[in-house]
Amino acid sequence: MAISSLHATTSLHSPCTTNTSFRQNQVIFFTTRSNRRGSTRHAGARTFQVSCSADKPVVIGLAADSGCGKSTFMRRLTSVFGGAAEPPKGGNPDSNTLISDTTTVICLDDYHSLDRTGRKEKGVTALDPRANNFDLMYEQVKAIKEGKAIDKPIYNHVTGLLDPPELIQPPKIFVIEGLHPMFDERVRDLLDFSIYLDISDEVKFAWKIQRDMAERGHSLESIKASIEARKPDFDAFIDPQKQYADAVIEVLPTQLIPDDNEGKVLRVKLIMKEGIKNFNPVYLFDEGSSITWVPCGRKLTCSYPGIKFAYGPDTYFGHEVSVLEMDGQFDRLDELIYVESHLSNLSTKFYGEVTQQMLKHADFPGSTNGTGLFQTIVGLKIRDLYEQIIAERAGAPTEAAKV
Amino acid sequence: MAISSLHATTSLHSPCTTNTSFRQNQVIFFTTRSNRRGSTRHAGARTFQVSCSADKPVVIGLAADSGCGKSTFMRRLTSVFGGAAEPPKGGNPDSNTLISDTTTVICLDDYHSLDRTGRKEKGVTALDPRANNFDLMYEQVKAIKEGKAIDKPIYNHVTGLLDPPELIQPPKIFVIEGLHPMFDERVRDLLDFSIYLDISDEVKFAWKIQRDMAERGHSLESIKASIEARKPDFDAFIDPQKQYADAVIEVLPTQLIPDDNEGKVLRVKLIMKEGIKNFNPVYLFDEGSSITWVPCGRKLTCSYPGIKFAYGPDTYFGHEVSVLEMDGQFDRLDELIYVESHLSNLSTKFYGEVTQQMLKHADFPGSTNGTGLFQTIVGLKIRDLYEQIIAERAGAPTEAAKV
Repeated sequence: MAISSLHATTSLHSPCTTNTSFRQNQVIFFTTRSNRRGSTRHAGARTFQVSCSADKPVVIGLAADSGCGKSTFMRRLTSVFGGAAEPPKGGNPDSNTLISDTTTVICLDDYHSLDRTGRKEKGVTALDPRANNFDLMYEQVKAIKEGKAIDKPIYNHVTGLLDPPELIQPPKIFVIEGLHPMFDERVRDLLDFSIYLDISDEVKFAWKIQRDMAERGHSLESIKASIEARKPDFDAFIDPQKQYADAVIEVLPTQLIPDDNEGKVLRVKLIMKEGIKNFNPVYLFDEGSSITWVPCGRKLTCSYPGIKFAYGPDTYFGHEVSVLEMDGQFDRLDELIYVESHLSNLSTKFYGEVTQQMLKHADFPGSTNGTGLFQTIVGLKIRDLYEQIIAERAGAPTEAAKV
Repeated sequence: MAISSLHATTSLHSPCTTNTSFRQNQVIFFTTRSNRRGSTRHAGARTFQVSCSADKPVVIGLAADSGCGKSTFMRRLTSVFGGAAEPPKGGNPDSNTLISDTTTVICLDDYHSLDRTGRKEKGVTALDPRANNFDLMYEQVKAIKEGKAIDKPIYNHVTGLLDPPELIQPPKIFVIEGLHPMFDERVRDLLDFSIYLDISDEVKFAWKIQRDMAERGHSLESIKASIEARKPDFDAFIDPQKQYADAVIEVLPTQLIPDDNEGKVLRVKLIMKEGIKNFNPVYLFDEGSSITWVPCGRKLTCSYPGIKFAYGPDTYFGHEVSVLEMDGQFDRLDELIYVESHLSNLSTKFYGEVTQQMLKHADFPGSTNGTGLFQTIVGLKIRDLYEQIIAERAGAPTEAAKV
């Protein structure tokens, strides 16, 4: 079955009203061979459309291992922009896509070139680049970035099969999340901002124990074995992407409880690259200094083991970065608002917005610790980045149209 | 020779103009037996005067071992109030007293009851309460506090003898500095504010080595012996006073240089008691939280070993305290003003006053480290305390007159 389609995008609250440069954009062809058992498969989209530069999506990449909170992160992100994120209406019920008023999040698993059986047959994991179609990923992200709709394949996580593609319109903000958003240099270069969720082995193990052993009845040995089996490919193909990320959220065991291995209390770092356009790192008290802060003195009464923040400059894979760290967890609302009041460069639109967002999703995983806090902050930074890019384009429409 | 004198104090820029309660104040008699060789000696002062409560000095106690920077501290303190501090004009050239426009600093060595020979004969050190006349100290500090002039004895550090007394008028601020300002409960109760300069044994040793060995040619063994000989009395009579101090300046070896024993780079703590009337502890960034701060990131470039601040709540001899700590030293002016800009509750009258004071006395010992910084800050806090006390008295003259 060959899939080819022609889509004209409609502007979503387009801020671009001055553009007069109507022109024909690049046309992309793919051939698709739909073979549900073990073959390679190329979903295709032929696009033709008229667009203005301000219409073109801002593209964000989010990399992380499976089951490491990407979907929670995405729900926090879309919430910052307002409106709930939902799967495409009337489409495949197993779609991995989430669409809100402004944001579309696609899962890069949809670019698996091998389905579950195919991977088994060839002896490769989903982490292996050979199980993924980076050419298609590149072409489609590029098309979206140019304001063109795409027919994106769907990897069905339930069946392990490749389902027929779904139509994705270019949104204001296009997020690609999955194992390999920064693996392919061409895709990486399309990203306006990139994030890596870095869960330490200890925490990953503790989480898997909790989920797979307590909730799914797996044995400790089988969990250990599955982690070990996954590790070589993870280290080879996923982990190296973090060097390219503009922001890394690193999740580590707490240092507040000696020898803790429960993974319930977390130490979370937000590593922010310096010198990134439209991205000003958050800081604590004094920009560029090294600071630790235990906000549990006379102002707040924290229960054991308390909360500890750290902030300071550092280097990360040779890049100058600012690092904000939170160890411990919030017990009460007043702790959260107190912490927010002492952070600067948060890109909030009003005092208390971080706290409001955290409270709004108090039921999400990580809402009492650094993962939730930093995901929310990164969401605000992305909103800010988006608004700056749009303002720039609106301010210089002719230049933008030339690009 | 019996010394008795009658003094009527003159108001030094007296803020007290509403007082109508003329009354006869307490009259104090002492007998004095002037025996220059080894006897006890009581200097005496008979006072009779008319005073108003706003005239009455604010009394400050400063405790420390000999040669530990009390005189530098006093020069910093009097400088905060303006005007240079000088010995009484036309008096004993070996007087230990310093007088400025507002402040009079007396040395408690003047209350030695045994002179050098006397101490030798009885086998007691100057640290021993038996070598000091606390009754006289109490009576005279009390008299000063009541606005009465005193005839204070003079201990001559050059000759080791007790010289004839000198006349001391009640100033606005009366500082008693020496080994025992908080030893006697009666004297202690007269203090409006008290400070203890706590030099750690390691630093004391390093300083003595530097001074006595390098400058005076003493042997290492003799220095060690003199420190050891002094230690039991110091620990018994001087050190315990720090529990009573409203502020303690603790001088420790640096932690920035591993195993440093040079005593050139210092870690200095300013321990400030909570709940003291008219004294609001200085804080860094966030009052009541625990904070460390290395202001040597992108804003400042510090040379090795850098500067590190710490701040937080603690307990000290069962009292709730706030502790501000500085480890390391300033290399440049911009570091000092940058640090000042991040400290709160400094009681400065204008932005940069701490820095200005430090620069004014850049040649004083400790001007590049925490001793100078914290001495200057304590000076500002004492000025603030004085002004609050005076304002209270002026605001309630009838009540004050009743006291």
